[in-house]
Amino acid sequence: MKAVVHVYLKTGVLDVQGKAVQTALHGLGWADVDDVRVGRVIEFALAGDDETEAKSRVEAMCARLLANPVIEGYRVEIAA
Amino acid sequence: MKAVVHVYLKTGVLDVQGKAVQTALHGLGWADVDDVRVGRVIEFALAGDDETEAKSRVEAMCARLLANPVIEGYRVEIAA
Repeated sequence: MKAVVHVYLKTGVLDVQGKAVQTALHGLGWADVDDVRVGRVIEFALAGDDETEAKSRVEAMCARLLANPVIEGYRVEIAA
Repeated sequence: MKAVVHVYLKTGVLDVQGKAVQTALHGLGWADVDDVRVGRVIEFALAGDDETEAKSRVEAMCARLLANPVIEGYRVEIAA
């Protein structure tokens, strides 16, 4: 089965990369762009066919490696 | 309205970051994880309420700044 993990900065944490993108877009003439946030998506295949078990395993991966729980949140999607 | 841009490496382009994540997950005991790909998501607000016009503007932003069209593809979603 396939896992998709969305990792994003928690609300209130300054998104430096987002600010840089926003400044660059303004500089290119898109002055109405606002509130830019940049996150990442990690996709991978994993063995087994129990979705609930897979989701709990992927959440453990997030807590151990894929996200920094101090400043980042995450959302896990499992597809067959 | 709100734009969500997904940027991912094209198929066939070596995903070095994905390989590093995969090696780390294997090292932590999740040996069945395979084919890890890391992409990014850029979310922002923009003015106007014509979804078609907004989508074409955001696609221009992708071509100019948000993605590297040589090695990356992108998908644009517009929400009210």
